[in-house]
Amino acid sequence: MSIEVGERKVYVLRIGHRPERDKRVTTHVGLVARAFGADGVVIGDVIDEKVVSKIKGICEKWGRKSFYVISGVNSMKYARKWKDRGGIIVHLTMYGLHIDDVIDYIRRDPRDILVVVGASKVPRFFYDIADFNVAIGHQPHSEVAALAIFLDRLFEGRELHFIFSDAKICIEPSPKGKKVTMCDRKGEGQEYQ
Amino acid sequence: MSIEVGERKVYVLRIGHRPERDKRVTTHVGLVARAFGADGVVIGDVIDEKVVSKIKGICEKWGRKSFYVISGVNSMKYARKWKDRGGIIVHLTMYGLHIDDVIDYIRRDPRDILVVVGASKVPRFFYDIADFNVAIGHQPHSEVAALAIFLDRLFEGRELHFIFSDAKICIEPSPKGKKVTMCDRKGEGQEYQ
Repeated sequence: MSIEVGERKVYVLRIGHRPERDKRVTTHVGLVARAFGADGVVIGDVIDEKVVSKIKGICEKWGRKSFYVISGVNSMKYARKWKDRGGIIVHLTMYGLHIDDVIDYIRRDPRDILVVVGASKVPRFFYDIADFNVAIGHQPHSEVAALAIFLDRLFEGRELHFIFSDAKICIEPSPKGKKVTMCDRKGEGQEYQ
Repeated sequence: MSIEVGERKVYVLRIGHRPERDKRVTTHVGLVARAFGADGVVIGDVIDEKVVSKIKGICEKWGRKSFYVISGVNSMKYARKWKDRGGIIVHLTMYGLHIDDVIDYIRRDPRDILVVVGASKVPRFFYDIADFNVAIGHQPHSEVAALAIFLDRLFEGRELHFIFSDAKICIEPSPKGKKVTMCDRKGEGQEYQ
């Protein structure tokens, strides 16, 4: 349960993961966290090495080997520790305040952010401990979509241009084809790490 | 295989669905399509009544009973028919052109849009028939996230404020709690249908 200290970190805590049915959705949560600029994903309460290994495999190939991935961490303890260390907690829930009404406050706050994304039933604890319960619209949809939109608003769209300097392979944008190249680390865009 | 004619329609075609492992991801694709302002979701090539029924159940309760949901439609025939009827096709793929470079053209085009989202292997056919192969960044992540960001950019964030006039229940935004009310259809925001 390591939480790095440094410039502002954004970690994602995925709660309520059920290995038998959530493998793909939780993997998508992890991959969105990585691709959209978060620093790590923590899968709470259950161990799922398959999901961890899938996400780490993507980091190995596409870059961000320092992206933090772990499963089986006690969610409530982790959230409490995050707060004790001075971080804030943003819980994504359709019942919360609309993202458009709170994102500017969250973006300006320099503290580390733990973004909590749940499955269907989220314990009361997380509504209470969260500094912000944030709704990505007030309709039922998807924790994967909610996380993507939250990080996209947080980073103001810049995350879709991040270049990961330790990537082994890269994509050359193409109108029709699939062009994958060995990375020369010379791509345009913001170098992320 | 009905395609309604009228003002600009946005439909989502989900290809490569495997009922045994994609049930939740495809359900999320359908719910994102509904919540983010698309007009329907078509699950290609395989019948999955469970997923269809889950999405329809959400429409029944949260509104948009006219949202079109079907499974088992031949994907390639559907795409060809869409084009024959004058619509355009946008295929979301990490290999395509960056969304920031093409979204303005797509938004200004008045024609109906079929947004194609695939699983891991997408037949060459869809790269070729697409008017735009669009990358939501060039990193591997999630078709659910890709669809959400695409629709969010297309509707310029307005979709997160849509009010569905036939909703039975609505959420009252809350900083800590869960407030669900019977809809009085008086909410703020744009009335969507």
